[in-house]
Amino acid sequence: MIKCGKYTKEGGWTMELLEKRIQKDGTVKPGNVLKVDSFLNHQMDIELFGEMGREFQRLFADKPINKILTIEASGIGIACIAAQYFHVPVVFAKKSQSINLDGDVYCTKIESFTHKRIYDVIVSKKYLKPEDHILIIDDFLANGCAVNGLIDLIESAGATVEGIGIAIEKGQQAGGKLLREKGYRVESLAVIESMNDETGEIVFR
Amino acid sequence: MIKCGKYTKEGGWTMELLEKRIQKDGTVKPGNVLKVDSFLNHQMDIELFGEMGREFQRLFADKPINKILTIEASGIGIACIAAQYFHVPVVFAKKSQSINLDGDVYCTKIESFTHKRIYDVIVSKKYLKPEDHILIIDDFLANGCAVNGLIDLIESAGATVEGIGIAIEKGQQAGGKLLREKGYRVESLAVIESMNDETGEIVFR
Repeated sequence: MIKCGKYTKEGGWTMELLEKRIQKDGTVKPGNVLKVDSFLNHQMDIELFGEMGREFQRLFADKPINKILTIEASGIGIACIAAQYFHVPVVFAKKSQSINLDGDVYCTKIESFTHKRIYDVIVSKKYLKPEDHILIIDDFLANGCAVNGLIDLIESAGATVEGIGIAIEKGQQAGGKLLREKGYRVESLAVIESMNDETGEIVFR
Repeated sequence: MIKCGKYTKEGGWTMELLEKRIQKDGTVKPGNVLKVDSFLNHQMDIELFGEMGREFQRLFADKPINKILTIEASGIGIACIAAQYFHVPVVFAKKSQSINLDGDVYCTKIESFTHKRIYDVIVSKKYLKPEDHILIIDDFLANGCAVNGLIDLIESAGATVEGIGIAIEKGQQAGGKLLREKGYRVESLAVIESMNDETGEIVFR
C-alpha cells in the first residue's frame, strides 16, 4: 500500500501522489488549461484512482453517504472506483436526453468551461430521493458550474449534499471558495495555486 | 465471494448473477429497448461491476492485454472496475472534439441506436500505439456499431484487438454474430435471445 496523504498547515489533506503525477505528466496550455489526459480524463490510471478513492473515503468517513453522484464523462471512472470504498452505488448525470431515460427527470443547465457551451443535464427522479445522502465526485473544480448543477439536481430532489470530492481544484478560479462559503464541505486532492503556460510551472496550494 | 459463473452447453460462460439482475430489474420497452438504468448505465451497482470485472479477467486470462478501450459514457464504469483485475489503464473514446484534446487523433463515425444520430468518435494518437494489445469493453452489443467503431480506431493505430467484453448482448441483432464471423473473440456476460415488451418476458440464450 502506498502512503499518499500528508497533513498540511491549512488543515486540509492533500495527496502527494497526485501532485507529483500532475507535475510529471500534466501540461499547461494557454487559456488556463491543464491537460491531464494521460492519466485522469482520457487515458485513466486505475491504480492512481484506487489511491484517490481510498483518500476520499478517509476524508468523508464521518458522513452518512449512501450514494455518489457524478457527471458524464470524465467523472465516472473516479466515482466508480471511489464507490468501492464507500460500498454505495454511483449515479451519473447525463448531458442530453436519451430515449432510454423515460419518465420524470430532474433537469438543470451547466455551462462547460472546456467545451464553451451550455448543456442540459438530467438525472432520473428514480435515482435521487429525499432520503439520499450524496457525495458529489468530479475530476475538476474550476468555476464550479458542474458542481453547482449537480447540487441543484440533488436539492431539487430534497436529498442532502454531504460533500464534494474533487481530484484537481483550480484554486485561481472562484468555484471552490464560493462553495465553501456557502457551507459545503469541499475536499480537493490537489489544489492548484497558479500555473504558467510559458514555463510550464505548476504551483500547488 | 459470490460464485457467479456457470458453464453452458454452447461452450460459453454466462453470468447467472447478471441474468438474474436483468430479470429482476430490467424492463422491456417498445422498439427493442431494454432498460437497465437502475444498475448498469445510469445508476451503477459497483459491487455487480466488480463481479463482472472479475469474470472478464477470467474469460480473457490467456490474452496479453495491456489496455482497455471503451466509449463514453456508459462503458466507462464497467471498464474502470474491470481494469483493476487486469492491472491496465483504460482509455475512453470521446464523442466530440474537445479543446483539451489537441494534437493528432484517430477518428471514426459511430451511429447510435439509442440516440438515433451519428457521432464523431475520437481517441488521441498518444494513447493507441502499434504495440498495444487491447480489450474492448462496453455495456451493450446490439448492431455492433460502437464496437466496430472502436475496432476501426484500434486498427487505425496498428494495435491489436485481443477481445471484446460485453455486459449485455442483444442476440436478436446481428452485431455479435458478425464480429465472431470476422474472427474476433466476443464474450458477453448475458445474451438475450428474445424479449417481449407486452409481457415483459426476457429469454436468455
